[in-house]
Amino acid sequence: MSDLHRPGLENVIASETAISYLDVEEEEIVIRGYDLIELAQNVTYLDIVGLLLYDVLPSKRSRKDLEGDIQKEYGLPQNVCSVLALLPPQAHAMDVLRTGISTLASYDPELDDRSHEANVRKALRLLAKVPQIVAYGYRAKYSQPFIEPRKDLSYTANFLYMMTGHVPTQLETDIFDQSLIVYSEHEMPNSTFAARVIASTQSDLYGALTGAVASLKGTLHGGANEAVMAMLLEAGTEEKLESILLAKLQKRERIMGFGHRVYMKKADPRALLMKTALDELAIIKNQPQLYNMCVRGEEVMKREKNLHPNLDYYAAPVYYLLGIPIELFTPVFLAARTVGICAHVIEQHDHNRLYRPRVSYTGPRNLHPSTAESL
Amino acid sequence: MSDLHRPGLENVIASETAISYLDVEEEEIVIRGYDLIELAQNVTYLDIVGLLLYDVLPSKRSRKDLEGDIQKEYGLPQNVCSVLALLPPQAHAMDVLRTGISTLASYDPELDDRSHEANVRKALRLLAKVPQIVAYGYRAKYSQPFIEPRKDLSYTANFLYMMTGHVPTQLETDIFDQSLIVYSEHEMPNSTFAARVIASTQSDLYGALTGAVASLKGTLHGGANEAVMAMLLEAGTEEKLESILLAKLQKRERIMGFGHRVYMKKADPRALLMKTALDELAIIKNQPQLYNMCVRGEEVMKREKNLHPNLDYYAAPVYYLLGIPIELFTPVFLAARTVGICAHVIEQHDHNRLYRPRVSYTGPRNLHPSTAESL
Repeated sequence: MSDLHRPGLENVIASETAISYLDVEEEEIVIRGYDLIELAQNVTYLDIVGLLLYDVLPSKRSRKDLEGDIQKEYGLPQNVCSVLALLPPQAHAMDVLRTGISTLASYDPELDDRSHEANVRKALRLLAKVPQIVAYGYRAKYSQPFIEPRKDLSYTANFLYMMTGHVPTQLETDIFDQSLIVYSEHEMPNSTFAARVIASTQSDLYGALTGAVASLKGTLHGGANEAVMAMLLEAGTEEKLESILLAKLQKRERIMGFGHRVYMKKADPRALLMKTALDELAIIKNQPQLYNMCVRGEEVMKREKNLHPNLDYYAAPVYYLLGIPIELFTPVFLAARTVGICAHVIEQHDHNRLYRPRVSYTGPRNLHPSTAESL
Repeated sequence: MSDLHRPGLENVIASETAISYLDVEEEEIVIRGYDLIELAQNVTYLDIVGLLLYDVLPSKRSRKDLEGDIQKEYGLPQNVCSVLALLPPQAHAMDVLRTGISTLASYDPELDDRSHEANVRKALRLLAKVPQIVAYGYRAKYSQPFIEPRKDLSYTANFLYMMTGHVPTQLETDIFDQSLIVYSEHEMPNSTFAARVIASTQSDLYGALTGAVASLKGTLHGGANEAVMAMLLEAGTEEKLESILLAKLQKRERIMGFGHRVYMKKADPRALLMKTALDELAIIKNQPQLYNMCVRGEEVMKREKNLHPNLDYYAAPVYYLLGIPIELFTPVFLAARTVGICAHVIEQHDHNRLYRPRVSYTGPRNLHPSTAESL
């Protein structure tokens, strides 16, 4: 078999998967057979958790059981909280999350059990604890007291509550829930791929997720939602945003929040869901200018470059109005994606094959230390 | 461009590199143009550090400067030590190392500077601090006091000293140094690949190395040296080792420490270096039976399966006689490989391309939540 030179692995099929698929032809994100947008319009995030981990949309009753199973795992070991509190104020929120998940690994009694069932149980523990690490890490950084999880709140409401300190309204909860769904799974982006690569050595789920956090931190991957919010806040008004965008376009700078590899011709329907949510939230929060500014930005990019906004463009202001600290936007993305990454690691362990590509060597040959000039 | 189905990425060239190459035809491991075995016989580990990070074998003087540059970076932030001390006794040594490196990231003032020069400086810091995390993590687990690094010892002698508490002899230092060289770099195994995948999102060196630790922990990757030592200790005598090996062969169990993807026809020359080292050490330590047992094991596998021992087979008893705790064998491997992984991350950042493969979707299509049976 001849070697194939594919830098970046473009168009290389690295794995079979029954989890999800970016259908570029039909412009559809398929999650275990369902269209992601239909799911986001009809079910809850916990249904997606059930679908991704158990391969079937749960009934109302089994969704309730699932929520109970996750809530049973609420709570962080005291030493994990202590580790989060020890991290320095300059620590990046994704580095805090990475260290928190890495630390948590040693407390899972089933860490090295790679059976399907044990992996699913670990995934439920991670779904319970990752939001808590996200929230605690932030509050430790700003010397705020930790907010204990509340089982009388839904999974999604509790996540928001632990970050903001306020019990969210039903509308806020529903909007946040929908955002978690649209971030939950996306075929095999770099972070999911990194997790599968790591898991393929028979390493454990926590280690694989730790690697995924490291990947998502990169500016070419996660972080676009934070960059969008920084731009919106810098702009402040519709007019200023237009001039910022035009200046960036003239300087050929990268503009975050536009374009997507699946939704090329049509607007990203995930973005449209978040746009509707932003419209509702902006009225309630009495910040209509934020919505109007975003719409103006969308119009400018459509007019100038025929580009559509993607999920990050509208998720960012939604998260802002939900009261989520900007530096937690990427950690929240990771928390939402945790279920997808876990599903991929479980699938990898169930049908494992070690990833071990080759290289094209471009360096010299036949050098000898005895004749090296420098010696 | 059609999609190529390559599970495990077998024979896919995922990257160009000028760092190293496994020449399977000539049975040679090439490190920046040099044969790894020639290097191990003629230079020191610090020369390899210079070669990998600066692309040239250092002169005697610049090797001394390099040692000084690394020694200047000795020392861990107090909070990193505190984090290591907080980890529970059951924590796997590789999980401790992963958490330690992840924690350390937040203390590097150049963390997010991906320039070549800043990356090299970070690599030197990691070379100074990773051995310390390895040693401190172990000593914290067993409630032993940390052993501060000593600048009057060579880099290699100090690493051994921090783990064992004893200043090593020159012979012990030379043997450990040679072992670090042969573990230092190996083209693109899963851990190095994981680091490059993560780095390709423009994530940082520490995060990439954290992912590599997670990968190396897997039983299909690192850990073979620990498994070998466990088998040798279980055996205890030549005769018992032979019967253990024969029993494993009959049950078609995997035997660690034999076979290698490059050295197929000839014996792994890295193993031969460690075999010679073991012979010397076993006499001095008055444990000739350990050497004899290993030779018998080698003979059995040659006779029964025509398999040669690989590096792990002889590195394990060498590390044992050097007084390194068995659970640190894989962390020491990672510490030795840190320079190679750093070189790869630096190269990735210098010529970046995001890794983003595709999948072959095997799940269903056209399901709709409204008609899902379970709802």
